Amino acid sequence: MNQNKPLILITNDDGYQAKGLRKLISLMRPLGEVIVISTDKVMSAKGHSITTTPTLTATLVESAPDYREYVCNGTPVDCVKVGYQWILDRLPDIVVSGINHGTNASINVIYSGTMAAAIEACMDGIKAVGFSLDSYDLDADFDHLDDYIVAITKDVLENGLPDGVCLNVNFPKRGEEPIKGVKICRQAKAKWIEVYSAIQDERGGTCLKLGGEFVYEDQGDDTDCMATKNNYVSIVPTHFDLTATQYLDQMSRFEHIMDKK
Amino acid sequence: MNQNKPLILITNDDGYQAKGLRKLISLMRPLGEVIVISTDKVMSAKGHSITTTPTLTATLVESAPDYREYVCNGTPVDCVKVGYQWILDRLPDIVVSGINHGTNASINVIYSGTMAAAIEACMDGIKAVGFSLDSYDLDADFDHLDDYIVAITKDVLENGLPDGVCLNVNFPKRGEEPIKGVKICRQAKAKWIEVYSAIQDERGGTCLKLGGEFVYEDQGDDTDCMATKNNYVSIVPTHFDLTATQYLDQMSRFEHIMDKK
Repeated sequence: MNQNKPLILITNDDGYQAKGLRKLISLMRPLGEVIVISTDKVMSAKGHSITTTPTLTATLVESAPDYREYVCNGTPVDCVKVGYQWILDRLPDIVVSGINHGTNASINVIYSGTMAAAIEACMDGIKAVGFSLDSYDLDADFDHLDDYIVAITKDVLENGLPDGVCLNVNFPKRGEEPIKGVKICRQAKAKWIEVYSAIQDERGGTCLKLGGEFVYEDQGDDTDCMATKNNYVSIVPTHFDLTATQYLDQMSRFEHIMDKK
Repeated sequence: MNQNKPLILITNDDGYQAKGLRKLISLMRPLGEVIVISTDKVMSAKGHSITTTPTLTATLVESAPDYREYVCNGTPVDCVKVGYQWILDRLPDIVVSGINHGTNASINVIYSGTMAAAIEACMDGIKAVGFSLDSYDLDADFDHLDDYIVAITKDVLENGLPDGVCLNVNFPKRGEEPIKGVKICRQAKAKWIEVYSAIQDERGGTCLKLGGEFVYEDQGDDTDCMATKNNYVSIVPTHFDLTATQYLDQMSRFEHIMDKK
C-alpha cells in the first residue's frame, strides 16, 4: 500500500467487461492507488441487495503497481463490503461506482446497484460518488465525461462531503453541443409503470417478461432529470435516511391509536 | 372482486411458510379481500432488487372467497409489481408487508426486502406499511402485535398517508410487560460492521461467509431503535426521496468545478 496516494475503490453493476467501468478505471489510475472490485455479471437493478449465503468469492484477475483488479460474484454492495472488509487492510479514501450504462436520476436511484454501492460506502463514512450516463448503449460514448469525472473526484478527495452524504452524478449522453456545466439538483418525482407480458419458457411453462414506461411527474426545473435533459451534469447530494421528517408531527395520531379501543 | 371491501395485498421477504406472514394473513382476512403474493424462499436483505430477466412466475396456491394466495419466484418488490401489474385488475387499497422476522429499524430499512415492497407500493401511490418484529426466531411469538397491526392498518385505510410516504413499523419482541404504546420516530443512525470469514466450499474452493456487528451511533431518544428497546412500537414515516435537501446549497461549489480549469 502506498500511503501517500489516495486509495480509490472502484465498483459497478454492469459486469467487469463494461465499457463504462473500463473508462472509470482509466480516469482513476492517474489519481491514486486503484482497487477494482467489479461484478462478474450484469447486476443492474439489484438495489441494496446483499449476499447472506456463504457463496461469495472475489478473484484477483490483474495486479500491477498501484493497481489490483478483482471480480466478485456478488452484488455491487457485496463488492464494496468485500473490498474494504476483506481485501483491503484499510478503508479506501473514496469509492467511485460506475460509469453506469443508463441513468440513475430520479427514482432509478432506488433500484440502482451502482448507487447502492456508493450509498453503502457512505453508510460506512467513506466518501463516495456514483457516476451514470443517460444511455443504455453497451458501446456508448463516455469521452465527453472525462474532465467532469476527474474534477468531481479530485474535489471530493480534497474537500470531502458532509457526513452521511454521497453524490449521485448523472451525465447527458453525447450530443452535438458540449455539456453546459453542472447543476446541483433534487431527485425528480417520477415512476415506472411496468408492463408484464407472458412468454413461454424452455419447458413450455409461462414466465413474465418485464417491460415498462418511465412516467415523469415533476414540474420543477431543479431536478436531476431536467438537468440532464438540458445537457447539464446533475449532482444530487444523496443520503440514506429515509425518514420523511416533514411528516413526523402529522403522524402523531398513531401514538394515540390504542386510545380508541 | 368485491368492490365494497378494501383490497389488501400482502407480501413478505421470508418465504411463503414464514410464521410472520401467516400471522399477517390471519389479521388481514377479516378486514377485506386479501391477495397474498409471497416469496417462494427467503429473500431477506434483497433491498429494492427486481428481476429483469424473463424468469418470473407467480403460482396460485390457494383460492377461497375473498382470498387468493400466490407464490412468486422473485424478490419482494417483484411480488408487489406482479401483484397489481399482472394479477390484479385494479390497484390494491393497501399493501402490507411482513411480519418480518427481524428488525427493520435504523439502517436495516436500506437492506430490507420487506420495506422495499412497501416503498415500491408507495412509489406507485398506494398506501403501504411494512411490519417487522425485533426477533430473528423462526418460531417467534407474534401474538402481542395483533391489536396494533389491526389498528394501524385500519387507520391507514381510513385516513390515508401523505403522498409519497409509507410506514416502517417495528415491534419489540415479547417481554414480560405488555407493549407500552406507539412512538413516531426517525430512523436511527447506526451501521453494520461486517466480518467475513473464509470457508471451504464443496469443491475445495474458498467462499466468504458474512457475519457482522450492529454498531449503534445515535444518542437521540427519538429514534426507532430507542423506541423498540424501551418496549414501544416504532413508526417511521418513510419516503423514497434520497435527496439530502439540507446540503443542496453547500454542494453548489460543484457548479463551478470547471471554472478552475
